[in-house]
Formats: sequence, C-alpha cells, structure tokens
Amino acid sequence: MCRIAAYLGEPIGLSKFLIDPPHSLHVQGWAPRELKYARLNADGYGFAWYGDDEQPAVYVNPGPIWSDPNLPHLARTLVSDLWIASVRSATEGNPVNHANTQPFADQEFLFDHNGLIDDFHSQVRPRLVADLDPMYLPSIRGNTESEYLFAALRQILADDPELPMEDALAELMERTERWVDGCRSLLTIAVSDGERLYAVRHAMGDDCPTLYYTTDDEEFPNAQLMASERMTHSEFWRMVPEHHILILDPDEPPELLSL
Amino acid sequence: MCRIAAYLGEPIGLSKFLIDPPHSLHVQGWAPRELKYARLNADGYGFAWYGDDEQPAVYVNPGPIWSDPNLPHLARTLVSDLWIASVRSATEGNPVNHANTQPFADQEFLFDHNGLIDDFHSQVRPRLVADLDPMYLPSIRGNTESEYLFAALRQILADDPELPMEDALAELMERTERWVDGCRSLLTIAVSDGERLYAVRHAMGDDCPTLYYTTDDEEFPNAQLMASERMTHSEFWRMVPEHHILILDPDEPPELLSL
Amino acid sequence: MCRIAAYLGEPIGLSKFLIDPPHSLHVQGWAPRELKYARLNADGYGFAWYGDDEQPAVYVNPGPIWSDPNLPHLARTLVSDLWIASVRSATEGNPVNHANTQPFADQEFLFDHNGLIDDFHSQVRPRLVADLDPMYLPSIRGNTESEYLFAALRQILADDPELPMEDALAELMERTERWVDGCRSLLTIAVSDGERLYAVRHAMGDDCPTLYYTTDDEEFPNAQLMASERMTHSEFWRMVPEHHILILDPDEPPELLSL
Amino acid sequence: MCRIAAYLGEPIGLSKFLIDPPHSLHVQGWAPRELKYARLNADGYGFAWYGDDEQPAVYVNPGPIWSDPNLPHLARTLVSDLWIASVRSATEGNPVNHANTQPFADQEFLFDHNGLIDDFHSQVRPRLVADLDPMYLPSIRGNTESEYLFAALRQILADDPELPMEDALAELMERTERWVDGCRSLLTIAVSDGERLYAVRHAMGDDCPTLYYTTDDEEFPNAQLMASERMTHSEFWRMVPEHHILILDPDEPPELLSL
Repeated sequence: MCRIAAYLGEPIGLSKFLIDPPHSLHVQGWAPRELKYARLNADGYGFAWYGDDEQPAVYVNPGPIWSDPNLPHLARTLVSDLWIASVRSATEGNPVNHANTQPFADQEFLFDHNGLIDDFHSQVRPRLVADLDPMYLPSIRGNTESEYLFAALRQILADDPELPMEDALAELMERTERWVDGCRSLLTIAVSDGERLYAVRHAMGDDCPTLYYTTDDEEFPNAQLMASERMTHSEFWRMVPEHHILILDPDEPPELLSL
Repeated sequence: MCRIAAYLGEPIGLSKFLIDPPHSLHVQGWAPRELKYARLNADGYGFAWYGDDEQPAVYVNPGPIWSDPNLPHLARTLVSDLWIASVRSATEGNPVNHANTQPFADQEFLFDHNGLIDDFHSQVRPRLVADLDPMYLPSIRGNTESEYLFAALRQILADDPELPMEDALAELMERTERWVDGCRSLLTIAVSDGERLYAVRHAMGDDCPTLYYTTDDEEFPNAQLMASERMTHSEFWRMVPEHHILILDPDEPPELLSL
Repeated sequence: MCRIAAYLGEPIGLSKFLIDPPHSLHVQGWAPRELKYARLNADGYGFAWYGDDEQPAVYVNPGPIWSDPNLPHLARTLVSDLWIASVRSATEGNPVNHANTQPFADQEFLFDHNGLIDDFHSQVRPRLVADLDPMYLPSIRGNTESEYLFAALRQILADDPELPMEDALAELMERTERWVDGCRSLLTIAVSDGERLYAVRHAMGDDCPTLYYTTDDEEFPNAQLMASERMTHSEFWRMVPEHHILILDPDEPPELLSL
Repeated sequence: MCRIAAYLGEPIGLSKFLIDPPHSLHVQGWAPRELKYARLNADGYGFAWYGDDEQPAVYVNPGPIWSDPNLPHLARTLVSDLWIASVRSATEGNPVNHANTQPFADQEFLFDHNGLIDDFHSQVRPRLVADLDPMYLPSIRGNTESEYLFAALRQILADDPELPMEDALAELMERTERWVDGCRSLLTIAVSDGERLYAVRHAMGDDCPTLYYTTDDEEFPNAQLMASERMTHSEFWRMVPEHHILILDPDEPPELLSL
C-alpha cells in the first residue's frame, strides 16, 4: 500500500507539488489519514516527470521521503507540467529497495500502482506470466505485483498501437480479474503517456482505496490533480467513483469511465 | 560475476576467513586477479553461517565490502565452523540491492552462485519457471538468475528427500543445460546443508571461472576451504577441475565428481 | 529524540530483547507512546553488545528498524548477557546516516543518548570542545551532540581511571550544565562498561524524557532492564526518578543516585 | 582523495559532462589513471549546478557512481551551463555517507576539495576552529577536512564582501598553511559563485595532485573545463601549474595566478 499523487497543468516546481501543500505526499509519508492497511509510508518514495526528449524520467529512493538529503535540492530546481509521485508502505515479502520503489517507467509510459494482490507470486503471477511475452521479463527488476501489472499493460498497448490508454487499462483490469481469480486485489493505478494522466480506482474482494481529483484547487491554478488523499483544504477535491477510470487532459474536462 | 569463498573446519572468527588472509575476499573486492568479465567486485557482498538452531543466517550489504561500518564489529565477534561468502560484480540489468546480493538461504540450505546466464529472463527463465512449482516463486525477491537456480535446486531436493546433494547439483546442471539451450552460462556454485560444503565448477559456451580448494593451508589448521582465487600464499591450493563437483566433509577427504 | 533500551542478565538472543516483546523497540519504531517531540523513530536504529574479547561491538543501520533484511538473521543468532539498543528520530540538522546512529562505542564503553541540546553547534559545542583534549576529535565521525557527550565522558574516565562510572556521569552532567548554559537539554543516557549498565535521566529547561527499569519482569527471568517505554505488560516496571542515575549490576539490587 | 571536474559554457546535459566523455568521471570512478593514494573512486559521488533561483543545488550519493539507478534519469534531463562534480575515494576515518560526499554548497557557493590533510582532527582542526566563527559549525554535517575548509572560506568571503574569490582562496591557502603547520596537505579545490569557476592546485609536504583545464576541447564547444584527469583525447588540455589558482570566466580567457 502506498499514497500516490499526480499533477497536470502549467509547469510547477516539484516542491510545490510534492512538499509544500498542507497534506502533501511528504506529509502523507508520516501522517496519512486514509491509509487502511498500514500506518506509515516510510518504505521509500519516488517521483517522475517527462524530459525535453519526451521520455519519462524517474527518481526513487528506498528511504523515508523526509530524510533524503537530495530531495530539497531536486524539489527546488526541477520543473515540469506533469508529475507522478508516491510514498510507499511495503507489503510483506516485498523488500524495501530501489527496484521495488515506484513510479516505474519504460521509454514512453509512467506507471504507479497503489495496492496489493494477495498470493500474487504463488497464485496470480503464473497466470499473468503465461499471458506475457517473455520479452517483457528482463525489464522487471524487483518482485512487486505492480511491476508485473505494468509489463502486462505495456504488452496490451504494444499489441494494438491504436488502442486508447483508457481501453488498455480497462483491458488490463479485465485480465487482472481473470488472473487473480478471487484473490483480494487493490488496484489504484496512475498512468501517463506524457500528455494525459489516467487513473484507475478499482478493487476486487475489498473496498477500493481512496482516490481524489480536482481541477479547481485554488493553490494549483490551471492544473488538474489526483491524489490518494486531498492534498489541500480546497473544497474542490472530489472522490473518483469506485471501479472507474479517470482521464485528465490538458484541454478537456475530466472524464470518468465506468469499468 | 563475483568472487566466492567457503570454509569448513574448526570454529573461526569471521575476520580470519573474510578479511585477514593476504588475498581475502575483502581484497578480492578491489583487487581481484582472475576475474574475467569485470574489474572489481564492489556491488555488494555477503556472508552466511549456521545458527545454534541449525538454520542458516545471512548478512548482505549492497555496498562495497570495504565501506560497511558494521563489518569490523561483526567480523570480530561472529564465530562459526562453516562460512560461505561472496563479493559481487553486478551484471547488466541486475540492480545493486539487498535482494540481489548473495549468499541466499532458505530454512535449510545456503547457496551462492558466481557466474551468469546470457539472455536469462527472455530465453532461459520461462523454461526454468515452467518446471518450477509456483510455491517457490514468492521466495524469489530479486531478479538474478542465481535466485532462480537456488529455487530450482530446492525443488529437486524437496522432490526426493533421499537425494544426496551432489546428485541434486548434477541434476540441476543437467536441467540447466536444457533450460539455457545454448545460451552462455557460467556456473560456479557453492552450497551447504550445514554439514558439508559442495561446489560446482561448470560452464557452457565459455570457460569455467576459476575455483580452488585446499585442505592443508597452514593458515587454516583443521579446515577445508574453497575460493574463486587462492586466499593465501600456501602451495596447497588446487584447482577444482572443470565440470566437476567438489565435496568437502568434516570427516572425509575431499571428493571430486565429474559432471 | 529516540527510544532506548538495555538488558543485563542471563544470556538471551537479540530477538527476545529487541523484537519479541509486545512493546519492543521494534514496535516503538513505528508506534511509540511516550515520545514527546516526534511521532516516529524511523531514522535508523542500532544495537550493541560485548564480544568474547570483552570489547564492545555495534551494529547500526540508518533505515527504519522494520525494513532491515539482516535484522531477522542477526536477531536469531546473536546471544549476549548485555544489550543496549535504540531507535532514532533525527533532529533537524543532523543527517540520517551510519555515523549519527547510536549506540556509540570505543574500545571499552558503550554509550547511547536519547535527547537533544538546543543550539548545540553554535553555542554549546565550542564550550565543550574547549574542555576536550583534541585526541578525542578524530573519533567523532558524525555531527550529533551525543557523540561529543560520549567523547567528553571518555575523557573524564581516562583522566581518573579510578573514578566510578556513576561519578563520571555525574561529572559529565555538571559540565554539561555549564556548557549548555541555559540551552534546553534532554539527557537520557545509557552506558555500559561491559559489566554494569548505567542510565542517566536528566534534563535542563524541560521535563525529563521517560525512562523505566525493571528487575522482575516475568518475561525476562534473571534479568534487569531499562527502557524509554515499558516493553511488556509486566507491573514491575518503575520510572527512574528525574535527575537520577540508575545502576544495574548483575549481583546487586538496582541503585538510584540523585544528581 | 577523489577525482573532480567542472564545466562552464553553453548549457549542456549532465550526461555529456559526467558520463559520455571517454575518460569521464564515470570512468574515473573505476579506472582512474593518475590517482596517487588510492586505486578506485567508489566511495560516493556527487554533482552540483545552479538553479533558476541562482542558488546552488547538489546531488550526492554515497555509493559507486555506476550503480545509482537515478543517475541515468537525472543525467538525461538536467541541463546547466555550470557543473561541478566529483567521485570519492574515502580516506581512513572518514565514513562513507551522504554528509561526507562532495560537492558542498551553501546558499551561494559550490565547493569541492580533492585531497587530504594528515592528522586533521587532532592537530589541524583545533587551530582552524579557533579562527572560525561558531555560527559556521552547525552547517558542518560530516567529518571531512573538506567541509571545514569550505566553512573557513565562507567566513573569509563574508568578512569582506568585496574580496574577489581568488583573493579569498589565496587567503584560505595562507591560513591553511598556518593551521596545518607542517602536516602533509593535498589541496586541489574547485569553487564557484555561479558565474565563474575557480580552482586551486596546491599541496604542502607532498606533490600536488594533477589538475587539467581546457578551453578548446572539440567535444565541448564554447566551454571551459577543469578536471583531475583529461576527460577526452583532445590535445588541448593543459596542466594547471602547481601552487596556482585558475580562474575560468565565461567572457575572459583563463587566468592563472601564482599562490
């Protein structure tokens, strides 16, 4: 379990997104309010953005967000119009290291999964891997279910380059339902292709973890955000409905699609 | 690629095995002599022994062996009659973290693999995993081929509790030859069951990395050792022949079995 | 601020002291109850004991106690009749790294300070260092006030080899009162010479942090303990009075001396 | 001892400066050619630049430069017209951690010291600190002589805001000569104020470590560089003379001043 957040809008410094808000991810690291299966998110953190070459860039650290001596410097100098970030609470059996710390990226997409799948390795992974082209295996560096989900999503996208991301996510959820075959699954996912932000709020066998979004937060002019917990006191944060996909587009109003 | 070493004999302090010898693993970390595909072993190190409860214990650190502030203390205080240790040179694509640092242990066995398998994830792993009971997957925390080999060995041993370790290792090598199917494989492996030390010196598609052993090193009275590189100036280190299994037993002379 | 604990008695495994008790330091890492100026102790942890050579040994890790993959192995295998341990909550300006993680040791003594001194570097340290033989400076590897206090204590002990530790601690508190000159100081300190455990519960300009001790905890037969927070449900934990030194001796009842 | 490098010129990506050159600092980490008192620079690395707010930003990592999973991402996306970087070989007694890893920064200046001062803590530091306003002590987070030298330089600059940096560096060297009082001192230093790069090549009681500079390297058009070892095959790298200060200015030819 983790807390995630994402930003899309006019370029802002990382600090304004990740650290400064009254209930930022930095705060959610040691004082989350709506975290169900953990008390803290001190098992690493990461953030991601897109470079001028339009490829994703990721910074992850397996320690608590508050003790990284590099963060103040990076937060002060990095600027982007798109951010995805998360603070991690490791689940049993998944070690605390760089490879297991999100967000994940390939050459094109950013991906961050907040949740868990019970009995993943012994029950679910064999079914997922049976459907996965082995060419995706070398890119999986850690042992979280999240990294396998990202690989599966990339395959869906690669198999049909015309497929819209929202349809790929819906397809991923459908396949996941088959793979988990009744195992409890918490599936809050944030994804980007560098232009839009997508989120899934979904779960099987349990309630969905919280996920909010806003397009009118006074502290973030001309921006749209999503986050596991409301980052500011603004009234304009709304809950993404359960079992829905959220699409944030720079030029369109937010779109909600039922799974 | 890595450098490995193991000790079996009268109880000695960790320091005497790991640090003090003139060409100890501590030295092989920054000045290996016979390392073929790397220049250093600075990507982590680890050592393992058996507790009074006869279960394996492992200490690993993903940093260079020479900068771990805990090592001098542990090396001074830990005593055992059996040690397995290694210093790591990470291969491309396998991150430097705890989960990828050897030795590995389960509740019974210690395992340390010095080598590599080309195209492991995309070519070899699917074949290996197809033969692997999924119950072994959750225990694989990192992404090295070594951890998969250890899982495969445990399955061979669990499938036939009467099978001697040397036969299990021979069986593992046979299966590995099938799984790698021509991919270059360097397979120097040290294993223990808490009573004896076993080593494999094997390779497919390349020369075997070096592996020496001794039962008469004056600096290690009443002890038998194996190591990627001779740890002392003693004349009594001999090369394990290529494609052989070495067995060191506290009460028997060393045994060499052709694969 | 931190949470500390110490054990003196019949030899026990580290696990029984550090991890297993219902409110062990392992638990106090993420759920402390009486921590005043912090919410967590996730900025490193350490433990210390004496080797067979009667010199102190220390293991420290700058990450949270719950995510150290080596701890289960060390906790299962290390046995000692004397333990000192702590979990850390870093104070502003003191980085999270090995050098700032306690306990500290020299060749003879173990030392662990739970507390803080306001304006230490700019106000207090110059006065402390003016009284300190420069021969102690090289041993100070980090920047916490704790490490300077330990150096000052060692000098007091070295200046008069006959001085009992309790008198040295009283002298250290007297000098510290002069050095801090009104700056708020929280001074809970645990010390050992390998035979006895000593604790100071003291503060200037604020309340003393909590410190308990017991000689009759049913879960620790034939043992005496001290801890920032009661580690078990036993009724036999008592508060060390404020501004007192506690002495635990294997063969004597606990002694309390007023500062 | 370390290897350092600095860049001043048209904006370039970090990768082009730190990683891509045939003998970049990335290479000098594991294969330095002119390092006198060490074999490797695997004890951490760091780089620094100036943000849009004209304040310095620093990234440091206490592990080897080649195993930092964040570096490829940062190297690909960060762009600056001024870089200072170094790879570290720790000297005895100075732990490998963030606090001891250079470059160092305050709100205005960047500083990187390649060298060592023998008996610094017991002999030299007391004399240096006697001349140092205690207000600089809290900013010293580690225990290297380098951090004390930077504090002393800042004091010289603050005491006379009109003093040119080259005069401040000359004054620092003069004071250092007095402080070290015959102790062997290697003093290669790179400094910036955000506009110009300054370097000192100096030593007392030993030869000066190498330091090169170039203004005509074909691989770095419109740029000036300095480095412990020539980073490219260009013929246009020259050695800074011993006991000299080098000044690189965007609009002036390089200036060399004798100490």
